[in-house]
Amino acid sequence: MSVIQPGDLALFQAETGKRAILRLEPDRDYQTHKGIVYYNDVIGLPWGSRINTHLGMEFTVLQPTLRDLLLHIRRQSQIIFPKDIGYILLRLSAGPGKRILEIGTGSGALTTALAWMVGDDGQVVSYDRREDMQEFARKNLTRVGLQQRVKLVLRDVGEGIEAEGFEAVFVDVPAPETLLPQIGRGLNSGAVLGAILPTINQVDRLLEAAPQAGFEMPEVVEIFMRSYKTTPGRLRPLDRMVAHTGYLIFFRFMAAVSGSR
Amino acid sequence: MSVIQPGDLALFQAETGKRAILRLEPDRDYQTHKGIVYYNDVIGLPWGSRINTHLGMEFTVLQPTLRDLLLHIRRQSQIIFPKDIGYILLRLSAGPGKRILEIGTGSGALTTALAWMVGDDGQVVSYDRREDMQEFARKNLTRVGLQQRVKLVLRDVGEGIEAEGFEAVFVDVPAPETLLPQIGRGLNSGAVLGAILPTINQVDRLLEAAPQAGFEMPEVVEIFMRSYKTTPGRLRPLDRMVAHTGYLIFFRFMAAVSGSR
Amino acid sequence: MSVIQPGDLALFQAETGKRAILRLEPDRDYQTHKGIVYYNDVIGLPWGSRINTHLGMEFTVLQPTLRDLLLHIRRQSQIIFPKDIGYILLRLSAGPGKRILEIGTGSGALTTALAWMVGDDGQVVSYDRREDMQEFARKNLTRVGLQQRVKLVLRDVGEGIEAEGFEAVFVDVPAPETLLPQIGRGLNSGAVLGAILPTINQVDRLLEAAPQAGFEMPEVVEIFMRSYKTTPGRLRPLDRMVAHTGYLIFFRFMAAVSGSR
Amino acid sequence: MSVIQPGDLALFQAETGKRAILRLEPDRDYQTHKGIVYYNDVIGLPWGSRINTHLGMEFTVLQPTLRDLLLHIRRQSQIIFPKDIGYILLRLSAGPGKRILEIGTGSGALTTALAWMVGDDGQVVSYDRREDMQEFARKNLTRVGLQQRVKLVLRDVGEGIEAEGFEAVFVDVPAPETLLPQIGRGLNSGAVLGAILPTINQVDRLLEAAPQAGFEMPEVVEIFMRSYKTTPGRLRPLDRMVAHTGYLIFFRFMAAVSGSR
Repeated sequence: MSVIQPGDLALFQAETGKRAILRLEPDRDYQTHKGIVYYNDVIGLPWGSRINTHLGMEFTVLQPTLRDLLLHIRRQSQIIFPKDIGYILLRLSAGPGKRILEIGTGSGALTTALAWMVGDDGQVVSYDRREDMQEFARKNLTRVGLQQRVKLVLRDVGEGIEAEGFEAVFVDVPAPETLLPQIGRGLNSGAVLGAILPTINQVDRLLEAAPQAGFEMPEVVEIFMRSYKTTPGRLRPLDRMVAHTGYLIFFRFMAAVSGSR
Repeated sequence: MSVIQPGDLALFQAETGKRAILRLEPDRDYQTHKGIVYYNDVIGLPWGSRINTHLGMEFTVLQPTLRDLLLHIRRQSQIIFPKDIGYILLRLSAGPGKRILEIGTGSGALTTALAWMVGDDGQVVSYDRREDMQEFARKNLTRVGLQQRVKLVLRDVGEGIEAEGFEAVFVDVPAPETLLPQIGRGLNSGAVLGAILPTINQVDRLLEAAPQAGFEMPEVVEIFMRSYKTTPGRLRPLDRMVAHTGYLIFFRFMAAVSGSR
Repeated sequence: MSVIQPGDLALFQAETGKRAILRLEPDRDYQTHKGIVYYNDVIGLPWGSRINTHLGMEFTVLQPTLRDLLLHIRRQSQIIFPKDIGYILLRLSAGPGKRILEIGTGSGALTTALAWMVGDDGQVVSYDRREDMQEFARKNLTRVGLQQRVKLVLRDVGEGIEAEGFEAVFVDVPAPETLLPQIGRGLNSGAVLGAILPTINQVDRLLEAAPQAGFEMPEVVEIFMRSYKTTPGRLRPLDRMVAHTGYLIFFRFMAAVSGSR
Repeated sequence: MSVIQPGDLALFQAETGKRAILRLEPDRDYQTHKGIVYYNDVIGLPWGSRINTHLGMEFTVLQPTLRDLLLHIRRQSQIIFPKDIGYILLRLSAGPGKRILEIGTGSGALTTALAWMVGDDGQVVSYDRREDMQEFARKNLTRVGLQQRVKLVLRDVGEGIEAEGFEAVFVDVPAPETLLPQIGRGLNSGAVLGAILPTINQVDRLLEAAPQAGFEMPEVVEIFMRSYKTTPGRLRPLDRMVAHTGYLIFFRFMAAVSGSR
């Protein structure tokens, strides 16, 4: 049976819904308004154990899943939602050993998911022109131990890009149509480009500009997720849902078409 | 620049929408009703190249993405759709090196996606009680070169399960609530169980049975994908969409609760 | 041009989004935290006029539409939403001169819409067993001047129903399947029954019970409405939406089948 | 009990799903590939009766509801769907005695619904510049006996409009933004304008042009309807649904703003 080790990342989940993701450094503790959990008491237990604070609040201690990590990302900007990330991972073929380019690091939610999927043999190279955002993302990645798989580059892609040979790129900036030639120079022919845009007018401009830059086979989709109350015998959807995060757009890059090689 | 190698898997995509995924064995060819493409003419070209049949039909030759593979799965049963697979991958934390259990191989669509994500260091163990389905899935996996990452087990899980120590399991059978104790014995404490069910009554039964078997923290969701026509200046959703594939249900497994250890 | 008359119902709409529906009794006024509007100053103006409070807050004065009335219903219970009411009106063929039965008056939102549509030559007969709810609904109907078209009956339909000869009925109670025989006695053969239910398990029970009571040709639907931000050049859906109000179920009543005549 | 009269409009519904709406002229008959129903055998029966063709096909005879009529509209153009019509009726406050303007008669589906709702004391005035479409709509309206409530005008609204004093208008033409000044001249101040447009770019142009023409308080929505299979114990949505018919846009008309009076 797998046992909790010093230094492991752990999800503390209370019945009340209270959740925290913490790294279990020996001799440290988790202080809640309902008492303290000493990490030394947790280390060595099997995953899935229940533990009480000295004031009697019970937590279940779980290995955090990728979704747990994403839901706990500290955010300083609009982040990409799990419903969208799932489809993006699939569309970018984000798997072990892949090198994936990201334009617009933001708070690092998608960066986290990409880093998870490419593994230690892969790499995510993520550009942002805002230093504060990259520092923020760096902290988010470090907190969950994925920083080794990510190279953060502080640069405005409009001024050129040093990266190359990528099979997939995701772009989360307001006017991706202005960056397509620069981005194309970093891509292998046949690479997948994904983008997310909040307004349909931005989608329109991207679709208009894409062919001249060699981006073909467009797909534009919206992903919705509807959640249910889970009481047996009284099944019903939750009253409200997220109606819009962004339009997802995907292309394949044709180097020959773009005339850039 | 990356160049097409003998033995590579290639997506042939025509302007007409005609698509095929083929392995480029030397000296073989692709015969269409509009002429022949000789693989020897393709090998050595850069990915993304255009090639014509001797009757003038043009194909673009691309490395198939995971989505391309999924759309080309030969199916003998209802398959799980990319919109759902994306979220399942995320929910199961399917990444490099993971060992993932699947109950209900079916045609092997999800098996393919899981195998893609776990990489050479991971493994998918997939149970099905129907020999014909497993042979069918085996062919699908072999066609795309992922069979090494998958162990197919021909067995009715209701008769017990030999596997153990899994961190994630996906169940695609009509009455998963009857198999929960057996499945639990294959899981690490804290493991994620995912399931897909077409009717809400099945979801009800699963939610009812789950807690006694140690499956907690239920989530029930539906994922929708709406696609757009991509003509700039005339943006609009497609007229019709898939309204239902299945309800997705997820739990965390608590070994202590289940009393199974 | 049509001019505001004493006693008219008026919608006051401010730029800020503040809205009120008021009856313009002469010599009365509307007091806001930003000043007073004297009704005498409004009476005689054309509809659509702008008027200022003495503290400079501007209101547009409009004839309230049916939707305006529905959005301003005072509610003491979950009300039926406009997105659902529209389809219900169509499905019940609620038009001039119709007599329509309602089981479960609630706060009177649907009652208001039905009364609007049947006109002075029609009638809505609405049953509720809770006196407080019926008084509440009566006030809502009176406030908008539709009480003449509605007969409110304080009675538990399970104890029998005196009404008869209806072409359409709408049922908004938790267990409609228990009332089907009594309701059937109030209906013409071929009448339409509509119902709204929050959980799918309730829908299941209603579908199960309906045929024996003579209710056939079932339709079960969900209606969704997604709203957009309306800034030209930046079109996008609102971030959140109502994901669930209730399932709508419709039948045709076959007297002969029910054996009740 | 209400009994079928000579000249009544009747819906014949077979178990197989076969449906027809027919006017029961004495001495006439309904010929199907499975035998004949003589109207004289139907007249005098109670509504909801079952009747057999001489070859044993059973029909239920029902009074057609508004929805039945809409589903049986013969169409020569894209028609507006019931899911949208319900909300349009509510938004236009289409009730007894109303005069409603329609720009773009098309096949007459919405015209039919509006005529149903305004009753004998109301009127629908519907403009179309295509003579063939108006003749087609006239036949549809006459078939269901609603032609008396509709004035069809063969004219391009861009050349001016003779109508005036309307409280509501619905516009179903490709470029409504070009007609706003002319339409405004037909409206009372405060009137509701509704429109349906298939592409988001058209919506953008309408929102851009509306304020100068006096159309304010914009609302843009999409209505979705998801239908369920109705087998008790196996409840699930249908596999596919309509994903898009059109965006619905609504405004209030402010005469003073438009400067047109």
